[in-house]
Amino acid sequence: MSASAPTPHSEKDIAIVTDSSLLAAPLHDAAARGFASDNYSGVHPEILTALAHANGGHQVSYGEDDYTARLQEIIQTHFGAQAVAYPVFNGTGANVLSLQSMLPRWGAVICAATAHINVDENGAPERVGGMKLLPVPTEDGKLTPELIDREAWGWGDEHRAQPLAVSLTQSTELGTLYSIEEIRAIADHAHGHGMKLHMDGARLANAAAALDVPLREFTTDAGVDIVSLGGTKNGLLFGECVVVLNPEAAAGLPYLRKMNMQLASKMRFISAQFVALLEDGLWLRSAAHANAMAARLRAAVAGIDGVRPTQETQANAVFATLPAGAADRIRKKFRFYDWDAARGEVRWMCSFDTSEADVDAFAEAIRAEVGDSTGA
Amino acid sequence: MSASAPTPHSEKDIAIVTDSSLLAAPLHDAAARGFASDNYSGVHPEILTALAHANGGHQVSYGEDDYTARLQEIIQTHFGAQAVAYPVFNGTGANVLSLQSMLPRWGAVICAATAHINVDENGAPERVGGMKLLPVPTEDGKLTPELIDREAWGWGDEHRAQPLAVSLTQSTELGTLYSIEEIRAIADHAHGHGMKLHMDGARLANAAAALDVPLREFTTDAGVDIVSLGGTKNGLLFGECVVVLNPEAAAGLPYLRKMNMQLASKMRFISAQFVALLEDGLWLRSAAHANAMAARLRAAVAGIDGVRPTQETQANAVFATLPAGAADRIRKKFRFYDWDAARGEVRWMCSFDTSEADVDAFAEAIRAEVGDSTGA
Amino acid sequence: MSASAPTPHSEKDIAIVTDSSLLAAPLHDAAARGFASDNYSGVHPEILTALAHANGGHQVSYGEDDYTARLQEIIQTHFGAQAVAYPVFNGTGANVLSLQSMLPRWGAVICAATAHINVDENGAPERVGGMKLLPVPTEDGKLTPELIDREAWGWGDEHRAQPLAVSLTQSTELGTLYSIEEIRAIADHAHGHGMKLHMDGARLANAAAALDVPLREFTTDAGVDIVSLGGTKNGLLFGECVVVLNPEAAAGLPYLRKMNMQLASKMRFISAQFVALLEDGLWLRSAAHANAMAARLRAAVAGIDGVRPTQETQANAVFATLPAGAADRIRKKFRFYDWDAARGEVRWMCSFDTSEADVDAFAEAIRAEVGDSTGA
Amino acid sequence: MSASAPTPHSEKDIAIVTDSSLLAAPLHDAAARGFASDNYSGVHPEILTALAHANGGHQVSYGEDDYTARLQEIIQTHFGAQAVAYPVFNGTGANVLSLQSMLPRWGAVICAATAHINVDENGAPERVGGMKLLPVPTEDGKLTPELIDREAWGWGDEHRAQPLAVSLTQSTELGTLYSIEEIRAIADHAHGHGMKLHMDGARLANAAAALDVPLREFTTDAGVDIVSLGGTKNGLLFGECVVVLNPEAAAGLPYLRKMNMQLASKMRFISAQFVALLEDGLWLRSAAHANAMAARLRAAVAGIDGVRPTQETQANAVFATLPAGAADRIRKKFRFYDWDAARGEVRWMCSFDTSEADVDAFAEAIRAEVGDSTGA
Repeated sequence: MSASAPTPHSEKDIAIVTDSSLLAAPLHDAAARGFASDNYSGVHPEILTALAHANGGHQVSYGEDDYTARLQEIIQTHFGAQAVAYPVFNGTGANVLSLQSMLPRWGAVICAATAHINVDENGAPERVGGMKLLPVPTEDGKLTPELIDREAWGWGDEHRAQPLAVSLTQSTELGTLYSIEEIRAIADHAHGHGMKLHMDGARLANAAAALDVPLREFTTDAGVDIVSLGGTKNGLLFGECVVVLNPEAAAGLPYLRKMNMQLASKMRFISAQFVALLEDGLWLRSAAHANAMAARLRAAVAGIDGVRPTQETQANAVFATLPAGAADRIRKKFRFYDWDAARGEVRWMCSFDTSEADVDAFAEAIRAEVGDSTGA
Repeated sequence: MSASAPTPHSEKDIAIVTDSSLLAAPLHDAAARGFASDNYSGVHPEILTALAHANGGHQVSYGEDDYTARLQEIIQTHFGAQAVAYPVFNGTGANVLSLQSMLPRWGAVICAATAHINVDENGAPERVGGMKLLPVPTEDGKLTPELIDREAWGWGDEHRAQPLAVSLTQSTELGTLYSIEEIRAIADHAHGHGMKLHMDGARLANAAAALDVPLREFTTDAGVDIVSLGGTKNGLLFGECVVVLNPEAAAGLPYLRKMNMQLASKMRFISAQFVALLEDGLWLRSAAHANAMAARLRAAVAGIDGVRPTQETQANAVFATLPAGAADRIRKKFRFYDWDAARGEVRWMCSFDTSEADVDAFAEAIRAEVGDSTGA
Repeated sequence: MSASAPTPHSEKDIAIVTDSSLLAAPLHDAAARGFASDNYSGVHPEILTALAHANGGHQVSYGEDDYTARLQEIIQTHFGAQAVAYPVFNGTGANVLSLQSMLPRWGAVICAATAHINVDENGAPERVGGMKLLPVPTEDGKLTPELIDREAWGWGDEHRAQPLAVSLTQSTELGTLYSIEEIRAIADHAHGHGMKLHMDGARLANAAAALDVPLREFTTDAGVDIVSLGGTKNGLLFGECVVVLNPEAAAGLPYLRKMNMQLASKMRFISAQFVALLEDGLWLRSAAHANAMAARLRAAVAGIDGVRPTQETQANAVFATLPAGAADRIRKKFRFYDWDAARGEVRWMCSFDTSEADVDAFAEAIRAEVGDSTGA
Repeated sequence: MSASAPTPHSEKDIAIVTDSSLLAAPLHDAAARGFASDNYSGVHPEILTALAHANGGHQVSYGEDDYTARLQEIIQTHFGAQAVAYPVFNGTGANVLSLQSMLPRWGAVICAATAHINVDENGAPERVGGMKLLPVPTEDGKLTPELIDREAWGWGDEHRAQPLAVSLTQSTELGTLYSIEEIRAIADHAHGHGMKLHMDGARLANAAAALDVPLREFTTDAGVDIVSLGGTKNGLLFGECVVVLNPEAAAGLPYLRKMNMQLASKMRFISAQFVALLEDGLWLRSAAHANAMAARLRAAVAGIDGVRPTQETQANAVFATLPAGAADRIRKKFRFYDWDAARGEVRWMCSFDTSEADVDAFAEAIRAEVGDSTGA
């Protein structure tokens, strides 16, 4: 800072300085971890390094910077030469933007009733995106052509919001996974009806790790038109990316991103994070680790009487029912959420920073408390 | 990362690793700076330190973390005990959210024609916020009670979008400044008509530095109801903050923030930046420096024939007209924007990282090129 | 028309005059009737008389006319002294306006999955009203407190569109009817959770006739906050009416009506129709007649093998399944709609102008064609 | 009504019957007329006849009726074989629908600051249509290519709402008229910039009468892409019509009409009115008469000291300033509106039912009261 800077009303400022300055030390317990959500985690250290490297000097704002240019190259390596990336702030923004870019004003989106866009975004798709959702109940969070057909009808009828897109979540909100073949079948079905296919990939990396295939095999090559590529839940500080896989399927992304309030002025810092995430496999290592921790947890609780898994554990989540009262007792040691309190169902999420020791200690706590419930 | 993590399809990934990995070095020239915008700058080093300190461990997402709690305390120190902070992603989001929280569905907002909400947000206030703007032409980007009255009428007439809020920008988009008295007069006038007062404070720190008074003196104490408090243009990586100064004037902020896609999951990282910015005067030092650099630039070009300032330089911007062709020649060395190309007007912005040497070199380049234009 | 009017380019106009001028005769067969919809009917003759009486001279536009004033009095006679009427153009407008007036921007509406607002309005509630619908599957188109509870949760959770209103249809889209007690139970339940209650009364008159009670007994007195009062399906040329029963539950109707494009300039002509409809029992006579015709049809087809009613016939609709192919054969003589083509379900609607002879001939045609299907 | 209809709770109903039944006589003074607005008028008698002829029997709802089919033929006679008509309820609906059909979600509309869409529709274009308006001040309510250019810039800049349409009003809100050449120049200019051209024709008939040319000469043939064709202000009971002149310029009208709540179920009754209006010149006779009455009024007040016309009288409106106090005194006899109360400007509108005697009596009243103001 230049010595010539004035020092205005310094007395007033001084009142604010405290012993607990954030410049001196963290304000929180950086060792505490739980199983509540993969967005309770912080930032992967390599991402922080990337942010530091991207700092300094001036870079053109709003995306004309060197990091966003580099990100475009990397995205194309992963998703094909036709792919175009639009970094945005958060997942809701990525979803609304993606869907809006594919839909006319009269469009509707078929999705699973459990889809994040339907239950966790306070109506942003409807209110901001101006679309109607046509949710379909599912057992496991996964659509099928048959389930889609429950709402795929009425084209040309002006009274019906026109079903013109399908939205999948991969991996799903219930920790389950679409196979490549399942996605392709849905894509073919959707396209056959003139509908486009969106994939909410807040946990796309977990899906890739679980399927053990490159990203493009179950996105671009399977017929997906546009993807919300998650970063935050895989170790970024913040940032998601709309990736247009089929440029003919989407329009106006630059304008939509701005008017939807998702255009970052210092975009280099979103792009740099994605560059670091995607350029050498960090994305996959982190996701594979989170998946492995969920598998470890699933295995560890498999033998506990009273813990009944409710979904397959195919990515980084474990869903199970517990005896009444057990969840609250376990939560005194580890934080996690009820999924369906009425039926005693809980959700346990693993993250890039979940350790084997975390899992083992958590499983032990579960065993102790559920044992209390079910034991003699 | 745990040694137990699988190493899936590693050959495919390796193809992406390159010599120019961001983990090894920056991709850009970290020494290049210009005068295009205060959002071309990067992150203040203290902010990066704060981000590192806020990292690690698990913190509750969506704002129930220790950093957001601390931020609330600091905001109250600056704006009064009634103030409540809602961190958001960007300035457009802060503005739309602020205005929406104060308006019924039939509300309209009186603003200067040059206001960012009117000209730079691709209609987000109208399209996402659902409001109508009632812009008023001004000479210097500043509203007055008289100018407001050009649109402040028609209450009760169902045909007219109801003027129920006024939005000021402080410091303005033209680099000018409202005095405390001017703000108070506008607040009284607005309130007298049943209208609320919003302040777009993307550069609120620059205004505070220029006025040399604490933040609350020209916001809370002057009658402002809600502020969009800028962070990005004052050295944050990203992040703005809606600050409700008058809780009776705004409603539903938590819901509106989510549905407007401005709720950060890892909110601790926005809040930590603001904590570092606001806790010991960094905000003011940075802003005062930027202002001083603009003043230095203004003084340096004052004597150049052919450079005609078009606005007062009261914050961190210099506006001037140049002879035809000069701007493009100068831009070969330093980046900046035309403001009104038709009349040869340009805008030069200074930032927290603008150095005296930058200013001097820039002024020298201006002198050289304008001299070419006007000299014999 | 004054003799002083110019006669411009008359040759060109003459080309348009034809032998089949509408001033000379109808263009359609005014004797043909079917069972497709109560909006296939025309206008009750008394309504046309009222329109003629309301014509002539100048009346203040946009609702400050003598007919709208009179309508207010009549509405209060029917719904209580606190009721306020807002005439609008159509049912979708009435529903969106009603719901919007009760909801903050973050509100959601619990409704039956079969509700008109959910399936027949092309997403207007979401797109124009900015609300989210929370549809609940039902057997008979009727909500219950238990069904409402499937979506009545999550208040205070910013991620969830807030359930702040319930919308019933009376009589329902499936021709069924809520009893007064059922409505009161729902109203108490909704209010107990801080939710408001809307009634889509496109066929409110049919419900009143079926219940054989005054309108206010199952609306105002049963706890309904706002009603969309139907006119078009009960013999008006056009026109519906938002009736605010609980003024504390709704706000901004005049503004919302205008911005939702539902404010008629020559409002006297909507109001006059409602005055004629409501002032001496025409509304009830017409609705009771339509109901009676549906009952007659239901009775007439009861004995036909192969016609299986799928809903109770409590108002002016009959729902039934037919053998494959029968519907299309019957439609060669009488128009009606499939309801659920996959299961062979059809809907037959009766109207104010359905005659006993119409019903008898229709039943005969059904018998003839279904007999073809099922007979030996 | 069938004798078999039940007679439910008749005592309750009887309470509502009054001596002043609308079936017996009008509620208003059908001889009173003023100069407030062309929508204070009622319905032309020929239109009532058409409504009666269109009544009776069943017609398919939502536009598949014989009258709407006939209207399409007539519209094509007037506007060319490519024209398609979409009857709607009111002018705001027609305007929002027209503009929305031509714009992507990021579009903006350049219009005169005095345009009805900007000042009289409570923000419906922004709130419901999701567009941004870019208003330009004018002297006489008329845009020119030069005035359009004040806002016609910034294409490709994601921060700016994209100017993709121009909206004219013909005749204008100030009673002025575009010549064919002026419209063609604007159309060429707009199209040259990739913008489409909308014409708000709430008073299109008055313009045709004033220009003394067929409708298509200053619409289709002059390059207009879509028209809001007014009916209400030219003697209809209600009803306007979106007319797509250039099918390549607009999309999705059927869906947009429904979701914008402008789809009439008994559409035959809008269409029949337009058929009667347009099939043999009623539209032109009525408009020409209204124009002639305005010209008569203008001439009559021309000689009155103190009455200063502020706009040319080219259609059916007269604008003038009056001495302080005069307007209120005149209004004791004839109703009309202030236009700009601050400068003493009033607006006098003539209608299809304004008589020569009305004009003469009004002019006499003006003379009497202004004489009071200015005389010795």
